[in-house]
Amino acid sequence: MTATKEQQSQRPNPQDEDLAGMSPPQRNWKGIAIALLVILVVCSLITMSVILLTPVDTQPGSDTKLTVEDLFSTGFYVHDPEAHWINESEVIYRNHHGHVIRFNIVTNETEIVLKNTTFDTFKATRYSISPDMKYVLFAYNVKQVYIFENNIYYQSDVRSNSLRLTSSGKEGVIYNGITDWLYEEEVLHTHVAHWWSPDGERLAFLVLNDSLVPNMVLPTFTGSTYPKGKQYPYPKAGQPNPMVKLFVVNLYGPTHTLELTPPDELKLREHYVVMVKWISKTKTAVRWLNRAQNVSILTVCDSTTGACIKRHEEASEVWLSKQNQEPFFSRDGSRFFLTVPVKQGGRGDFHHVAMFTSQARADQNEVRHLTSGNWEVTQILAYDENSQSIYFLSTEGSSTRRQLFSVSTVGLFPRRCLTCELNKAHCTFFSAIVSPTNQHVLLHCKGPGAPTVIIHSLNTANYYILENNSVLKAALRYKRIQLLEYRSVQTDHFELPLKVAYPPDFSESRTYALLLMIDTAPGGQQVNDRYSLDWDSVLVSSDNVIVARLDGRGSGFQGQKVLQEVHRRLGSVELQDQLTAVEYLLKLPYIDRTRIGVFGRGYGGYIALLLIKSTESLFKCAAAMSPVTDWNLYASAFSERYLGFPLQDDSRYQFSSVLQNPQGFRDQTLMLLHATADANVHFQHMAELIKNLVKVGANYTLQIYPDEGHFLSKSSDRHMASTLSSYFRSCLQEEVLPISEEEEEEEE
Amino acid sequence: MTATKEQQSQRPNPQDEDLAGMSPPQRNWKGIAIALLVILVVCSLITMSVILLTPVDTQPGSDTKLTVEDLFSTGFYVHDPEAHWINESEVIYRNHHGHVIRFNIVTNETEIVLKNTTFDTFKATRYSISPDMKYVLFAYNVKQVYIFENNIYYQSDVRSNSLRLTSSGKEGVIYNGITDWLYEEEVLHTHVAHWWSPDGERLAFLVLNDSLVPNMVLPTFTGSTYPKGKQYPYPKAGQPNPMVKLFVVNLYGPTHTLELTPPDELKLREHYVVMVKWISKTKTAVRWLNRAQNVSILTVCDSTTGACIKRHEEASEVWLSKQNQEPFFSRDGSRFFLTVPVKQGGRGDFHHVAMFTSQARADQNEVRHLTSGNWEVTQILAYDENSQSIYFLSTEGSSTRRQLFSVSTVGLFPRRCLTCELNKAHCTFFSAIVSPTNQHVLLHCKGPGAPTVIIHSLNTANYYILENNSVLKAALRYKRIQLLEYRSVQTDHFELPLKVAYPPDFSESRTYALLLMIDTAPGGQQVNDRYSLDWDSVLVSSDNVIVARLDGRGSGFQGQKVLQEVHRRLGSVELQDQLTAVEYLLKLPYIDRTRIGVFGRGYGGYIALLLIKSTESLFKCAAAMSPVTDWNLYASAFSERYLGFPLQDDSRYQFSSVLQNPQGFRDQTLMLLHATADANVHFQHMAELIKNLVKVGANYTLQIYPDEGHFLSKSSDRHMASTLSSYFRSCLQEEVLPISEEEEEEEE
Repeated sequence: MTATKEQQSQRPNPQDEDLAGMSPPQRNWKGIAIALLVILVVCSLITMSVILLTPVDTQPGSDTKLTVEDLFSTGFYVHDPEAHWINESEVIYRNHHGHVIRFNIVTNETEIVLKNTTFDTFKATRYSISPDMKYVLFAYNVKQVYIFENNIYYQSDVRSNSLRLTSSGKEGVIYNGITDWLYEEEVLHTHVAHWWSPDGERLAFLVLNDSLVPNMVLPTFTGSTYPKGKQYPYPKAGQPNPMVKLFVVNLYGPTHTLELTPPDELKLREHYVVMVKWISKTKTAVRWLNRAQNVSILTVCDSTTGACIKRHEEASEVWLSKQNQEPFFSRDGSRFFLTVPVKQGGRGDFHHVAMFTSQARADQNEVRHLTSGNWEVTQILAYDENSQSIYFLSTEGSSTRRQLFSVSTVGLFPRRCLTCELNKAHCTFFSAIVSPTNQHVLLHCKGPGAPTVIIHSLNTANYYILENNSVLKAALRYKRIQLLEYRSVQTDHFELPLKVAYPPDFSESRTYALLLMIDTAPGGQQVNDRYSLDWDSVLVSSDNVIVARLDGRGSGFQGQKVLQEVHRRLGSVELQDQLTAVEYLLKLPYIDRTRIGVFGRGYGGYIALLLIKSTESLFKCAAAMSPVTDWNLYASAFSERYLGFPLQDDSRYQFSSVLQNPQGFRDQTLMLLHATADANVHFQHMAELIKNLVKVGANYTLQIYPDEGHFLSKSSDRHMASTLSSYFRSCLQEEVLPISEEEEEEEE
Repeated sequence: MTATKEQQSQRPNPQDEDLAGMSPPQRNWKGIAIALLVILVVCSLITMSVILLTPVDTQPGSDTKLTVEDLFSTGFYVHDPEAHWINESEVIYRNHHGHVIRFNIVTNETEIVLKNTTFDTFKATRYSISPDMKYVLFAYNVKQVYIFENNIYYQSDVRSNSLRLTSSGKEGVIYNGITDWLYEEEVLHTHVAHWWSPDGERLAFLVLNDSLVPNMVLPTFTGSTYPKGKQYPYPKAGQPNPMVKLFVVNLYGPTHTLELTPPDELKLREHYVVMVKWISKTKTAVRWLNRAQNVSILTVCDSTTGACIKRHEEASEVWLSKQNQEPFFSRDGSRFFLTVPVKQGGRGDFHHVAMFTSQARADQNEVRHLTSGNWEVTQILAYDENSQSIYFLSTEGSSTRRQLFSVSTVGLFPRRCLTCELNKAHCTFFSAIVSPTNQHVLLHCKGPGAPTVIIHSLNTANYYILENNSVLKAALRYKRIQLLEYRSVQTDHFELPLKVAYPPDFSESRTYALLLMIDTAPGGQQVNDRYSLDWDSVLVSSDNVIVARLDGRGSGFQGQKVLQEVHRRLGSVELQDQLTAVEYLLKLPYIDRTRIGVFGRGYGGYIALLLIKSTESLFKCAAAMSPVTDWNLYASAFSERYLGFPLQDDSRYQFSSVLQNPQGFRDQTLMLLHATADANVHFQHMAELIKNLVKVGANYTLQIYPDEGHFLSKSSDRHMASTLSSYFRSCLQEEVLPISEEEEEEEE
């Protein structure tokens, strides 16, 4: 499904992974590096606080209005240095000048590894560097459809001959070590489906057999006299899925490939492999999930025998979430940590850190919950066995935040927040990467202020700023930027979070248009502290529009109960919640009920369409980008997760379709947007919708992005931003009545 | 190219022809019937005059405004009975109740052959009836892409076994007796590529070999879970064309197939077969045209030997027009009639009837011109050898008209108009079908009044009205309908005809918006007397818009010089003429120069795009439906006719492309419309345009018709009419200024 922004950033960039996919030897080094874990850790990062983030001046009244041109100017560019550890004390990152830098946190030395001019020479946009610093792989001329031979080759040295490890690979049919569309988008969330053992001697990899998966055709319209469509396996709801097998090959000594056998319960049933992680030189942790996605088995597999032993099982009436998360094992393998849903009273289960300790029988564990509360552990980052502590990110304090915590694995499990006092006003939403031996942490403050990246020691007060986006900060200082307010909406079932953006010169005595934004999917989150400026911010800053975002039922980070409400009711409960939110907002005296718009993208586009279809004149106008219009036409793993395996004339699927009763669209004003080569939400969805709109004589205007995919090119993205802001500006503007100037002033 | 309306009606409906293509025995009977020509004819039809056509009351001020809903209501439906002769005295037609009627002009008897309920039973829309009245073939579930086995079968009786005459047919590669896309659309203008000899003993047929023609993919988006695209051979400019061969098979006695050999001059060069006509039981007239379309050879071929003898040759610097026209031969074959361009002074050549008489050498003719003048013979209908006269349609009197004439083939070639006095006010644009032995004529009055179809005797005053569209006439009587005025625009080169539609309550003291319509292609005509009401008429009737249509250089029926001006200058001279027309109209005091719109379709869409690209703020808004944007991407036979065979980086092609310098679109308001499965102007044209628009940040709104072809389904057509009228209504409406009522009145 359309990823929320957060999901986008957490998921490795597929282009990047493509590089990796083509150069297994590099993954080898990296695998080793990452696997050389641990020793000593300490304390708090509280001391960092103060200096890091220069506050952004966003006072109302300051200077000029924000424009769409601003958003795409270099001044407003958010630079992500994409920093990563190459050993315990060194990171590689790309600075805002485009140089690739190696930085040593111990010696405080920096070295330019690659000049920005080198990128120009190769016309490259992305790079991958070998940990020994000898080789750089550039990606250039990156295109949206990858083409693979789908086999794995191993090269022990860049100059040595490569060894072909698999031969079954066949484009679009058998995938060895890389994912097909479904696994990339809905199962593993990465293009990589191979994993190096810590010593680099073994490689685990998936073999996906898509021979029974029907192919979807993506049309091509431009670029040649006779453009040909492309096709690729895409299992829609109820269609045959790829068959998955997991193998390990050992690379030293005689090459030997062994299948890791699925647990007996799933061996003869359709299933997914959703997580693979090496936990020692010879053992991997593997999670297997049935097709219905409500039975999950975590096994530890011996790569010398192929045998997998069950270590943990989850089962549920509804689908299981967070199935990609990696467990953290102790060195001896007797203990591991995971987040699991824990009952917390009225709001149901929340994910918390649990410690599983082996008992006499291997498949039985003693379970201890290290954390609890009406908040959620979003990610376990590291287990430091020496200091007996776990590092993790959580929403403690507010579901809009992500702070770094440590919790002791002994005693009363004392925990402490390591980032809560760190430039509070501008940094409350972090992601983090702990260094291989837990001495340092790469902290990425993603908001609410301008994003900043620092390295901080976990034992001392040392820190180093990799990127503080000072250009962006300067740019923001001279713009009228939206003011954000967090509210909550009480529905019949839950108190749901609402984020409202106000014009900088907001006054309760005036009236404003309202734009409802829906840009998320089940499990996602819109209402959080991440920094974001987009075309809707332009409307707030410059056109007196108030923009609101609600996280309704089905959204993540508010506990399992809110999330699971959409089970078998996709498109129904979220719709109610969005309507409740609009009703709530209409009670505010400064909202003009004749000027309400709604925008949604992907899943949000689906909800936006349902909203205008089911209301008569509530919304003055609506826009939907790449909307799903029928879940029968969407990916199996997604549709079936929420609606189940579709039966013949499945009423659940029919009821949830936008295509039913298109009469509701008749008197609506609707803008539709879609890229024609969208491999995720096929243009098919849009075409079926339009056919229905034409049939009932409904109005619409359409923007297409020929031959582009789900994520648009920069120029198209800019065109879209400009189109959408103009569309809503003109739709939501106050009608100028022919009255005298005095009267006008009075009215204001 | 997009057919003008006239071309559409003259070209047999492909769905109809499909039927015919599947039932050769029927063609047999028809062939025989049509071939049993001639005897006696007489005189004038003047006597018919008076009664026929009830005048339509279109007085200004009458009653209600026209709406788009009106246009698609049954009241405004124009019924075409599709009448045709089945023998000398009988026609078959479908009346407005949907019954199929046999009418005998001699006995005046009518008989219902098929009830309208029969059509409902078979869910059929079209029918084909055997001349012996025993069999009816229904077409039901008609789809836009035909699928053929591409072989010819012969069945002497409906109950007998069929005989397979060809075996080489291969879908999308070898076409036996039917046309491929290029031949259907640009060469023969029919799906039928087989011709029965008068006695039904022989069948001439084309074999088109498309094995070297590249395939174009038409995407499919809807209707199934995994829609697959369709592909078909479509030679674009400069690509390999279908190879054509002409065969004759004799069906009585031992089946024997013989190739009719092309003339030596064209044997080894790429060529088209553009006309085949049986002129006796064993002889066919065949016209061959070189690929450059400037050398044409008319041969008479002996179907017993395969030998073809040259009878007439045409050659030109520019392309040759009217290459489909059939010659009319005398029984002994020594004489034939054709229209050929004849020099007429300042306006260059006009097509006139010429009589060719064989001399001693078979390839030499004596040529006599039977007609002359600054007008054009548009079609020869019949040669009555007994009365020594030719029946033809011409533009004599005005290029906007088509009247039926006869001319004697002897003496001083006296000619007389047979329809000129026939309800002058409402009928000046006729098509006609003369009966097999020239005793009667089926006259189709196509305008300017409501269309009417009558049968009239050519010897007596007898007539019979088949259809007078009385429902339509009644409907029109209560609507405010546009008033038409014909003007001419003097350019540097020609005086060009302009048709202007005024609101019924037009007043010179008010100001009006202007909409320029361009809905034609080279050789076509917009300014004529055909009845037509479309969405633009709604704007005239109801929204105070004046609609203008110009026939600029490149248009037909005004002589060869006007037509040929576009040679190698496509998109340049027509552009100038359209701009001149707008300038001319802007001098009229009642046209508001701030409210001008332009609409074009197909080729007209191409011109409309060029117009707004090349002017800065002349047009307030524009719409283009299925526009060609690059001639490299359009059909070989069309593009090469006007621009020549494209060379590498052909500057002529580049210069004529809409895709060059898209910056001109930046500040324009543009609506684009296209069906995604358009097999004529591929969606590719639109996609390339949009890619350019996005690149330069130009605004546009788009309407697509998913999986529809060049001609839209009824519901889509209605949607388009509604969309376009709304678009131009809102764009061209007078801006309401906040002024007092007195001032407003003054201004008016």
